[in-house]
Amino acid sequence: GAKVEINDDASLDLGFRLQSQMIQYDSDAVADSRDYKIRRGRLRLGATVHEKVSLFMQTEFAEGPGAGGDARVIDAFIKYKLDDWAQVIAGENMAPSLRQSTTSSGGLMAIDRTGLVYKDLTWGARAVGAFTNQVLPETDSGLGGDVGVRDMGLTLFGSGSLSDSTHLKYYVGTYDGASTNNDSERYTARVQMNFGDPEPGYYNLTTYHGGKETFGIGLAMDAQDEVAEAAIDGNSPAEWHDYELMTADLFLEQPMGPGALSAEAGWMDLDLGGGNEHFVNSDGAVMDGEDDRPYSATVDRVQGSGYYAQAGYTVGDWQPWVAHESWGSDADQDRGSYDATRVGITYLIDGHNANIKAGFEQTKAENAIEENKHGGEDTINAFVLGGYITY
Amino acid sequence: GAKVEINDDASLDLGFRLQSQMIQYDSDAVADSRDYKIRRGRLRLGATVHEKVSLFMQTEFAEGPGAGGDARVIDAFIKYKLDDWAQVIAGENMAPSLRQSTTSSGGLMAIDRTGLVYKDLTWGARAVGAFTNQVLPETDSGLGGDVGVRDMGLTLFGSGSLSDSTHLKYYVGTYDGASTNNDSERYTARVQMNFGDPEPGYYNLTTYHGGKETFGIGLAMDAQDEVAEAAIDGNSPAEWHDYELMTADLFLEQPMGPGALSAEAGWMDLDLGGGNEHFVNSDGAVMDGEDDRPYSATVDRVQGSGYYAQAGYTVGDWQPWVAHESWGSDADQDRGSYDATRVGITYLIDGHNANIKAGFEQTKAENAIEENKHGGEDTINAFVLGGYITY
Amino acid sequence: GAKVEINDDASLDLGFRLQSQMIQYDSDAVADSRDYKIRRGRLRLGATVHEKVSLFMQTEFAEGPGAGGDARVIDAFIKYKLDDWAQVIAGENMAPSLRQSTTSSGGLMAIDRTGLVYKDLTWGARAVGAFTNQVLPETDSGLGGDVGVRDMGLTLFGSGSLSDSTHLKYYVGTYDGASTNNDSERYTARVQMNFGDPEPGYYNLTTYHGGKETFGIGLAMDAQDEVAEAAIDGNSPAEWHDYELMTADLFLEQPMGPGALSAEAGWMDLDLGGGNEHFVNSDGAVMDGEDDRPYSATVDRVQGSGYYAQAGYTVGDWQPWVAHESWGSDADQDRGSYDATRVGITYLIDGHNANIKAGFEQTKAENAIEENKHGGEDTINAFVLGGYITY
Repeated sequence: GAKVEINDDASLDLGFRLQSQMIQYDSDAVADSRDYKIRRGRLRLGATVHEKVSLFMQTEFAEGPGAGGDARVIDAFIKYKLDDWAQVIAGENMAPSLRQSTTSSGGLMAIDRTGLVYKDLTWGARAVGAFTNQVLPETDSGLGGDVGVRDMGLTLFGSGSLSDSTHLKYYVGTYDGASTNNDSERYTARVQMNFGDPEPGYYNLTTYHGGKETFGIGLAMDAQDEVAEAAIDGNSPAEWHDYELMTADLFLEQPMGPGALSAEAGWMDLDLGGGNEHFVNSDGAVMDGEDDRPYSATVDRVQGSGYYAQAGYTVGDWQPWVAHESWGSDADQDRGSYDATRVGITYLIDGHNANIKAGFEQTKAENAIEENKHGGEDTINAFVLGGYITY
Repeated sequence: GAKVEINDDASLDLGFRLQSQMIQYDSDAVADSRDYKIRRGRLRLGATVHEKVSLFMQTEFAEGPGAGGDARVIDAFIKYKLDDWAQVIAGENMAPSLRQSTTSSGGLMAIDRTGLVYKDLTWGARAVGAFTNQVLPETDSGLGGDVGVRDMGLTLFGSGSLSDSTHLKYYVGTYDGASTNNDSERYTARVQMNFGDPEPGYYNLTTYHGGKETFGIGLAMDAQDEVAEAAIDGNSPAEWHDYELMTADLFLEQPMGPGALSAEAGWMDLDLGGGNEHFVNSDGAVMDGEDDRPYSATVDRVQGSGYYAQAGYTVGDWQPWVAHESWGSDADQDRGSYDATRVGITYLIDGHNANIKAGFEQTKAENAIEENKHGGEDTINAFVLGGYITY
Repeated sequence: GAKVEINDDASLDLGFRLQSQMIQYDSDAVADSRDYKIRRGRLRLGATVHEKVSLFMQTEFAEGPGAGGDARVIDAFIKYKLDDWAQVIAGENMAPSLRQSTTSSGGLMAIDRTGLVYKDLTWGARAVGAFTNQVLPETDSGLGGDVGVRDMGLTLFGSGSLSDSTHLKYYVGTYDGASTNNDSERYTARVQMNFGDPEPGYYNLTTYHGGKETFGIGLAMDAQDEVAEAAIDGNSPAEWHDYELMTADLFLEQPMGPGALSAEAGWMDLDLGGGNEHFVNSDGAVMDGEDDRPYSATVDRVQGSGYYAQAGYTVGDWQPWVAHESWGSDADQDRGSYDATRVGITYLIDGHNANIKAGFEQTKAENAIEENKHGGEDTINAFVLGGYITY
């Protein structure tokens, strides 16, 4: 961003991010055949107000069905830095779990985040396809916090080097979590080791375009007791279910031949207490909006485990990339399970600051995909061409 | 706006616009006798991030009935400039049609845009009065996109000179268009010639306060197949209707005596397929919110043709101006037709950057105006005093 | 904020405010036991565009039940300064009444404003507790304007010195007022005298941390005819009620021993025409959302009179403070009445620019508090720890 001095002690930094997509669908399962979309439109204000005190605020625009063009505030936190090893962050922020849950949307490689991130409570505990542009049917738990895609709370973050080539960072936090229970707190913890160059900041990138030489490994867990009640239907006695997410991830950035390899893989297990019920709100209404039980998101269709892997190779101004992810649900007939494969290429006008990405994704669901529920289509093919700017 | 450097290649430009109005109505047809209003409150961020790449984001606040004070993102696009003659604009932007559809709201003369602009799909295909502050009854088609007052899409824009005194610019675009049909695309095209000085940018102004000497002529068309279904009532079989808008416009800025004349005229024809039905959504509900058919916006009351003309004379710090527009609907008894006459004066504190405008508009509708449907009032008189700032 | 020049005549000033709270409740009357919250997240743009003309725009994020994270525009006005004694302010702004109604939220001492401010029409004419984080039951009139926490209108403001040690400022304004009646206007007036140092600006602070030596006295009134209709139930004939608020306040900032005292007191009387009815909208529905009449906000439970007093003592980097307020309703059994006592301490990292506040409030209501209506809890204990940054 652009720095502006306030006085000798204080300064602000003004930044922005704009991601503009054209999405072409080749699937009867999606209503729109071609869609123009602002995937992210952000204005960012960072400020240092004291040797130890800084803040960060960011507004977001994301077009969505019926959502219009409202600007939302998605980041708003104060950081009190006692030490590199002890930084207290208070406010609305990314709750750390899987590596890509704290990966900056300004540092993505394969068009967007891996879909597994959306199994995190912060992103609604659901399955997505078409470069995260479509929610898959029978998978939307309806869970979520008062502020989507972030959480409100307190994080202790620390980062430093154990030796010249061994670096550690950790995140421990407590948050408001699910809006369906205000009595329990959400807790998450993540630890990450890097060998070679460090990745010292709160946020990771998915590729450094050859700018680092590092191997990273991360482990996280994320839990909240009694996130919501589930019931067979609105009238049955409902039971409280716990949320527990465990993740592991690897990252590699390595010079190779005339270019550099960026590779990443992760595993995730989501436990919501299982069962053939769906989550209900305090009025007994099903939270995903679908009360047609055979085709709604039962708890066992939401939960399960999965993995993703992606790799890109930067050479000159180009970076071709591939990605794959797979999710297996705990439900009968694997309903809620899906596989997705992505392939594409990025033209680097100026690294992450300005580039153009083209990609194709095929998402295959075990169950039939929306709009053709009864024995219909189970595949979404999506081609995306997008411009990406961040500063 | 204010420029701030990011680095040698990149810089941002921060701008703002604030238009604060006091409106006094003299009509029983309007519920409020006096209304204070922020007509536009905007924060703008432009950035150049590379020789060929720039972006533009703008937030808007417009108070409206029940709309509260939400900030909305109304512009968000990336521009890739291959050449002056070939600039690709991707994102949320003004879809070009009538000259005033791409006139900057920071460069208005007669308080606001001519009402004809609201017949454009982007602005809801409806009729407005009282300096665009009131929607006229039986005229609101209910049509519109996911993002109001702009559209999401891709525009190819080019501008240049054919000789010293002959200048051309063109816009060709495709957009998401009406939210009621995601299968068809909206297409618009506009060509504009200027003789004398050029008006080279994407946006036009309504007056240059004597700063240019030019004559401009523009032609445009704007179309989308099957924008929405229309039916006599919610239960009848509904039929898809197409949207087609054609416009022509003239502009003159010319020194004259001790001052300068700014004059403009335009013509528009809107074809929606006609008929005595109203547009309905997928649930069969009438989209303009009025299901009382004798007084709702039937298709033939929305469509029709019209013209506007306006002129102002800048002398010293003052610019008196007059404007007239007329719309004739295709319905029986001319229901949906209206005439509006405006007269006023602007005190130029600092050109378009800061000025005060006072104006009076009389809007006369063929049919009775809301709140007095049955044989009541058919005229709205409105006096506006406003402060206008833009940078 | 940070100043950026636009040109020789114009410049803008970019500022921000972030208040991040952790609230621990010790009361069954509040659903959430611990809540993380962005109390205020603001981006501010001020601009001087001419010797006499300036503007001010501010966006706000306040998390609330169901409100999500929308950014709202809460200030948007143009100031035309003829003279220090005659400044015309047009747009969305704080309507002056009680001292704390025009106190900057960046200059608070006891965590937040005194609750009495919420009896003002601008803040909804209701009673609040837990450092203004909870609305008390049976007290929410449902009144309010189209834009909450501010009003749209025109204010004449003047400020100057009558002698070296005697300073006067006045505010006279007219505003849109209650959204339930568009025919009447709201009028407010406030006059304030300061002896010693002046407080010349539109906004007051609650403490200057020893930076001033002054005694201030203020008187205000605030009225709108026929703000809304009230009825026993939705079917009864409704009657229009007037709104009338009168306030008086004192302020003292005085060096004392090794530090400085900041003290403030105020009195308020609210008259809404009385009676055992509740306010209803044009559909006859009760406006506070509670149609269970024995436990709803009847007019006489909303109206009444009250006072507040608060004092703090700044010594070095610390400022301990205490506050008390009391409201007596005009209803039977004092329903709607409450008392609140607050005690806390502020650690001044950098005055109002950056500090940490910790405070405890006990709010006691005469009637039983929500969630335990029938003979339940009548006390809310709340502990707040918060970070406060403003520039």
